[in-house]
Amino acid sequence: MRPVAVIGCGVTKFGKHDRSVVDLLAEASLKALEDSNTLEGDFDAVYVGNMASGEFEGRSGIANALVSELGLEPAFASKIENTSGSGGAAVLAGWMSVASGQSDLTLVAGGEKMTSVSTEEVTDIIATLTHPDEYKHGVTLLAFAGLQARYYLEKYKAPRESLAKVAVKNHHNATLNPTAQFQKTITVQDVLDSPVVADPLRLYDFCPITDGAAAIVLCPAERARKHAEDPVAISGIGGATDTHVVHERADPTVLKSVKRAAEKAYRMAGRDPRQVDVAELHDMSTLLEIIQSEDVGFFPKGTGWKAVEDGTTSLKGELPINTSGGLKAKGHPIGGTGVAQVVEVTNQLRGKCDKRQVEAEVGLTCNVAGFGNNTVVTILERMR
Amino acid sequence: MRPVAVIGCGVTKFGKHDRSVVDLLAEASLKALEDSNTLEGDFDAVYVGNMASGEFEGRSGIANALVSELGLEPAFASKIENTSGSGGAAVLAGWMSVASGQSDLTLVAGGEKMTSVSTEEVTDIIATLTHPDEYKHGVTLLAFAGLQARYYLEKYKAPRESLAKVAVKNHHNATLNPTAQFQKTITVQDVLDSPVVADPLRLYDFCPITDGAAAIVLCPAERARKHAEDPVAISGIGGATDTHVVHERADPTVLKSVKRAAEKAYRMAGRDPRQVDVAELHDMSTLLEIIQSEDVGFFPKGTGWKAVEDGTTSLKGELPINTSGGLKAKGHPIGGTGVAQVVEVTNQLRGKCDKRQVEAEVGLTCNVAGFGNNTVVTILERMR
Repeated sequence: MRPVAVIGCGVTKFGKHDRSVVDLLAEASLKALEDSNTLEGDFDAVYVGNMASGEFEGRSGIANALVSELGLEPAFASKIENTSGSGGAAVLAGWMSVASGQSDLTLVAGGEKMTSVSTEEVTDIIATLTHPDEYKHGVTLLAFAGLQARYYLEKYKAPRESLAKVAVKNHHNATLNPTAQFQKTITVQDVLDSPVVADPLRLYDFCPITDGAAAIVLCPAERARKHAEDPVAISGIGGATDTHVVHERADPTVLKSVKRAAEKAYRMAGRDPRQVDVAELHDMSTLLEIIQSEDVGFFPKGTGWKAVEDGTTSLKGELPINTSGGLKAKGHPIGGTGVAQVVEVTNQLRGKCDKRQVEAEVGLTCNVAGFGNNTVVTILERMR
Repeated sequence: MRPVAVIGCGVTKFGKHDRSVVDLLAEASLKALEDSNTLEGDFDAVYVGNMASGEFEGRSGIANALVSELGLEPAFASKIENTSGSGGAAVLAGWMSVASGQSDLTLVAGGEKMTSVSTEEVTDIIATLTHPDEYKHGVTLLAFAGLQARYYLEKYKAPRESLAKVAVKNHHNATLNPTAQFQKTITVQDVLDSPVVADPLRLYDFCPITDGAAAIVLCPAERARKHAEDPVAISGIGGATDTHVVHERADPTVLKSVKRAAEKAYRMAGRDPRQVDVAELHDMSTLLEIIQSEDVGFFPKGTGWKAVEDGTTSLKGELPINTSGGLKAKGHPIGGTGVAQVVEVTNQLRGKCDKRQVEAEVGLTCNVAGFGNNTVVTILERMR
């Protein structure tokens, strides 16, 4: 395989927009083209991560539409739908395209326009990703998250406040990220006082509904410096699944798809978890950040909550997690998240994160589809 | 890149089914696993071509669902949505996955369950793939096909009957294909007597609404004979786009995305059009088969209709096209078509097509998204 590099990044402001997902994807993409000095580049392929443009906006074939919007014909285009893991799967598709020699300059964009429908309709659309056998019993994603939290807190004797501290940390980080949806700090008490969603989890334990898009430009690593001064290598990438039906899993506090995808990515990169300096994890709920920090190997199972309590995962800690604000506070435009995670880690490695900048040579992203049934993990490294 | 082989195929009966798309995908996949002796295989990745499971059935994440249905965890799974080109794009994704070293045993399935909604709703769902700027003026896919036909017939002095003969040929082929939707021959007069859809095109000039699925198993070519006696090499594959907005194209009788994708595929395979012995083209309308037979380089522009008239593209001709019955008569389960095309050509190369078997060493498939705005072309060859 040919080594692959990220040579530029772009994101829109996350929040509420009165524009279509194709417009948002185009804005993020143009920023990435500008950032990688490829506005005049001959692109071979465009991959788009998006869950539900059909349901949200009555549009299909949006990858074709994006290519035309940007004037990138005859670049091949394809949309990847992997529910909340669509963005990460699009990054993997872009990587495969370059690594296999199918394409040189390759754009990967991800985004979602969610506020075109009511909150009730958003819930219905997202519910299409759960297994019908479980959904018919009323078990939504939020319900799963609540059951998982209750079980985790009891099993590992973790204090409820440790979950709230994930939200507090990520809101703080978001205030240092101008494109994040939320721009205000919150307290542990704010979380504990917010309305119950799925006991013990409350409103502030969950990510919001978000419009937004992110994009990266990939090329063969050997040509990366022709375009960019500070390219970042995708040294490892891998995807894996767990059972679609959640109740078939032996231990609901373990996300096997995360473990397996991380193992693949570390193996390819020749890295281990101790070498990772910064990470973006898929904190759809506060606990999910903690569980993933265990399953990608940063902390032993059942101890991730301690790393939040003692500040290890804060901006000034040893292993900052979700410096962007995470899904929780940066926002979660479903199909965009996996790409936005790579944007954040790439910019951390390039030293372009301004007030939230951390010291990092190696970074990791973890983008999860469904309730942990399909994950892509990426390892990114500064190129020397 | 690592050379890639197809080692097994499966299809469901095409037509009307009272089962979900995941069930149809699972049936085709199990047949492909059986055909490739990989029922006990360790799969690394599963790619699913599907346009609109969300709109047709209220399901997303069906790639995850298929993996679970087949018990293939922890294989990574991803759905590709490229409108009517979803299947071909999924084949390309599977090829990239193996070629890049991301996966060894890889399943590619494609399918659609369309009859879960009314015909009017099908029309609305398919219309989501046209550009909103054109659709708001009432220009549907069928309208484009009609305008294109009128222009082609006039420009190249082709007789109206030549289009009808594509339908006659493909219906005949379908009667020799037990899994094809239509099992009856028709006459030129039948086509000319059928109701007008978009003048000059009539009902029998168009493909039907279809439920169905198809699947192939891929692996690195060097390991193909461990599984199969008669593997088929994917010697070339490429994708390309044309403008999304059809009225921006200089000549509506040329599908540039087809030309460009074919050029990429021929270049990779080191082949030229004269070396192709059998082909499956995307005959959404009768004329589209003719136009594609020109744009992939089989015949000079404006002469493809003569090859239909003189029998060159019939089963006993020099270059049989759509031996399966094509979209026209085999049926067109949207996201399944690109995979089903590869199944047909693979089986022709393996000598497994019984009463419709032709002599072939090299085959080609052409799967088109939208109204020619995104195409994947594949070259398949017998492995020696």
